[in-house]
Amino acid sequence: MVVPLTMDVYKTLREEAFEANLEIKRRNLAIYTWGNASAFDPDKGVFAIKPSGVEYDELTPKNMVLVDLEGKVIDGKLKPSSDTKTHLVLYRKFMGIYGVTHTHSPYAVAWAQAGKPVPVFGTTHADHCAYEIPCTAFMNPEEVKNNYELETGNLIVNTFKNSSLDYSQITMTLVAGHGPFTWGNSAAQSVCHSVILEEICKMALFTVMIEPGAKPLPDHIIRKHWERKHGPDAYYGQKQL
Amino acid sequence: MVVPLTMDVYKTLREEAFEANLEIKRRNLAIYTWGNASAFDPDKGVFAIKPSGVEYDELTPKNMVLVDLEGKVIDGKLKPSSDTKTHLVLYRKFMGIYGVTHTHSPYAVAWAQAGKPVPVFGTTHADHCAYEIPCTAFMNPEEVKNNYELETGNLIVNTFKNSSLDYSQITMTLVAGHGPFTWGNSAAQSVCHSVILEEICKMALFTVMIEPGAKPLPDHIIRKHWERKHGPDAYYGQKQL
Amino acid sequence: MVVPLTMDVYKTLREEAFEANLEIKRRNLAIYTWGNASAFDPDKGVFAIKPSGVEYDELTPKNMVLVDLEGKVIDGKLKPSSDTKTHLVLYRKFMGIYGVTHTHSPYAVAWAQAGKPVPVFGTTHADHCAYEIPCTAFMNPEEVKNNYELETGNLIVNTFKNSSLDYSQITMTLVAGHGPFTWGNSAAQSVCHSVILEEICKMALFTVMIEPGAKPLPDHIIRKHWERKHGPDAYYGQKQL
Amino acid sequence: MVVPLTMDVYKTLREEAFEANLEIKRRNLAIYTWGNASAFDPDKGVFAIKPSGVEYDELTPKNMVLVDLEGKVIDGKLKPSSDTKTHLVLYRKFMGIYGVTHTHSPYAVAWAQAGKPVPVFGTTHADHCAYEIPCTAFMNPEEVKNNYELETGNLIVNTFKNSSLDYSQITMTLVAGHGPFTWGNSAAQSVCHSVILEEICKMALFTVMIEPGAKPLPDHIIRKHWERKHGPDAYYGQKQL
Repeated sequence: MVVPLTMDVYKTLREEAFEANLEIKRRNLAIYTWGNASAFDPDKGVFAIKPSGVEYDELTPKNMVLVDLEGKVIDGKLKPSSDTKTHLVLYRKFMGIYGVTHTHSPYAVAWAQAGKPVPVFGTTHADHCAYEIPCTAFMNPEEVKNNYELETGNLIVNTFKNSSLDYSQITMTLVAGHGPFTWGNSAAQSVCHSVILEEICKMALFTVMIEPGAKPLPDHIIRKHWERKHGPDAYYGQKQL
Repeated sequence: MVVPLTMDVYKTLREEAFEANLEIKRRNLAIYTWGNASAFDPDKGVFAIKPSGVEYDELTPKNMVLVDLEGKVIDGKLKPSSDTKTHLVLYRKFMGIYGVTHTHSPYAVAWAQAGKPVPVFGTTHADHCAYEIPCTAFMNPEEVKNNYELETGNLIVNTFKNSSLDYSQITMTLVAGHGPFTWGNSAAQSVCHSVILEEICKMALFTVMIEPGAKPLPDHIIRKHWERKHGPDAYYGQKQL
Repeated sequence: MVVPLTMDVYKTLREEAFEANLEIKRRNLAIYTWGNASAFDPDKGVFAIKPSGVEYDELTPKNMVLVDLEGKVIDGKLKPSSDTKTHLVLYRKFMGIYGVTHTHSPYAVAWAQAGKPVPVFGTTHADHCAYEIPCTAFMNPEEVKNNYELETGNLIVNTFKNSSLDYSQITMTLVAGHGPFTWGNSAAQSVCHSVILEEICKMALFTVMIEPGAKPLPDHIIRKHWERKHGPDAYYGQKQL
Repeated sequence: MVVPLTMDVYKTLREEAFEANLEIKRRNLAIYTWGNASAFDPDKGVFAIKPSGVEYDELTPKNMVLVDLEGKVIDGKLKPSSDTKTHLVLYRKFMGIYGVTHTHSPYAVAWAQAGKPVPVFGTTHADHCAYEIPCTAFMNPEEVKNNYELETGNLIVNTFKNSSLDYSQITMTLVAGHGPFTWGNSAAQSVCHSVILEEICKMALFTVMIEPGAKPLPDHIIRKHWERKHGPDAYYGQKQL
């Protein structure tokens, strides 16, 4: 039995990114090539990301692109996603996240295009985030010109910093006029957060259609729903899961 | 041929709960693990309910959790749904119901988030309920703190009691800021009521979008549609079915 | 080879009704048992209709119910649709129609619940109907009490008569607070008209959401689109088809 | 081995048109026969187009109809789409396009019925078009009477000419009260543009529902998104793709 001379030390990372990108399509978060997910390995300082402009049906673990935190392609024959530098900034600044997803899912895009944060209208939202989903400001012409995708990352990071938001508790944001970016402790979790954000945005739209002056959920109920799923005494789900 | 030493006296109950939970997914009433159904056996004083946080694809009749009306787990290796105590209160106080379903279906959630009862805009509604679908008030901080899920059950029961609503004729409600709870004479019927409620809520939303001042159906038509399906001289459907 | 002693002279009629009812489900015009279609044979004075309250999956050509124009069941072990008398009145009064369909498709129901006719906002509508889709008034208590389903038929017929509408050119209507009824030169065509009505109602809702004061299509364009499909010099489609 | 006496010089063109028409159905851009696509060969001055009124399931490469730029049928046993002359005008006047698609997709139709251009509300739009999607005026009675489908083509062409719009950068339009027409460098690309237009129209509708006074994206962001995909220094996608 022959041992292969070289081993793919990024095998798991590639597979995680591949699976997360497929999930974008399965969950109808993007048509054509309009979404991308990445998986980050903090020990190696490398993330695997979707190649730019390639259809989901043509993706394989092999054609995921490996990029380091300087934006250098470590391995891969294809160009990485055009949004690569946004992912990169999030991995650099939001220490502890291991996955990032960006899509053009229509309800989340609509709130982003309206330039409005999504209020906590109900427990569906509070189960996953105890605060309104922030929406960034628009980027200025200088930033757009310099390094657009990198500045998109900075825009997100500064939106969180300037409003003292905690990216470990608010794992999703809207970029004004653009769409949703989400993150998590794995690529799979980051895409799951994109699914949840889309559902929250859909429900919030329906809510303001029924009642344009709808009020956010009272804070004690927000807090309760968040705590029972994510607090120190959380009791939702199975410990062994 | 060997007779098994122990027999599962809850076999039917488990299967009923299992089937009802699968139906939640099949009918697109919840994504991920966002809905739960239970089946109640009044003779044994026990109900079978979805385990907490387990995906629908991983459910089996075996992993349904059996709980008595004190909330004690009678059988099952997993923790029951975090909403178990709400189901429990409904079985205790709404005598004669044998199934309860809770989902986060988006149109019903939207009306709940708007904090509004759903008017009887048409015969689709009247065929299944001759009254508006009630929406509870918000729970106060004390109730949330004490025993949230139990108090959710109490909130529903008191909403019906305080407005003299008949839970055998109105088999569905919205909990303000949260979502729909429905019940019926079986787990299967309770999930069917969740499907119907979602359809009614969708139609009601579309109706107010066309005509914000839409009026409820005249009472004599409401009454007729209810009676032809559920009255003493009902003539809808087949007797033998 | 043995010749059967009795032959089913209604075989074709049963199959037509069966197929039309299946199409209701395939086209998502109704959930559960919320829609019914019938096929009429004017020579025999008999129509085949869905049995009441039976799921679409359980339908067979065999269990379609044969009813004459007095409402008498000619053949069939099951009770016919509770809406049978509405179909009956339409066959009696709208001479030359051979199929009727009734559904609770959500966009058509919404316009019916809003109690509003659907304006001819565009060519999609004009391709199939050169006039707004009428919406009846509400039935009065006396009519509801007397013979509800028969009076529903009369309500439709009188809406057309009182406004001098031509049922051969307007093959669809909304019953206020209830939903759509459509007809055609076959059961298949009547259900096709239900599909088209739902699409028109969806587009009309979206239109008023974008522009609440949207104007109907100019009459010369309405006329052109109707004529090219249905006029004496129609040139849409293939002659041999 | 026998060489066929005659060869189908239009084989590729037929197949391209056939595939594009199937894509209309796969992408849910039209029900029944409500959409048509064509593929143009500028060297031969001929395009292949869907036959009129034929269901998508009955299409084959063989039954595509070949038409020259005078509107004469070059090959095919069936009548070409009733919209053939609109396609013809676009091929004549929009030099360099090789595919045209027309559908009745509901969100695009709604904007057309509202008679409103679609503002560039976000980057999803800007990625594919740096300008608002134009909406034509209504045709006058004379034009409708003379040669309706030809005049529809002229209406589109003149809308672009009169407002100095560039059809190579804006590959989609709404015809007021009717619906979308799109084009591209192949039949496949033209139908892809119809899919994108429908998605843009859906997002734009949701946006104005959240914020009726929503502002277009700032111009420097529009420009950036367009340039990174379509400018001289575009860096989206793979060069070899």
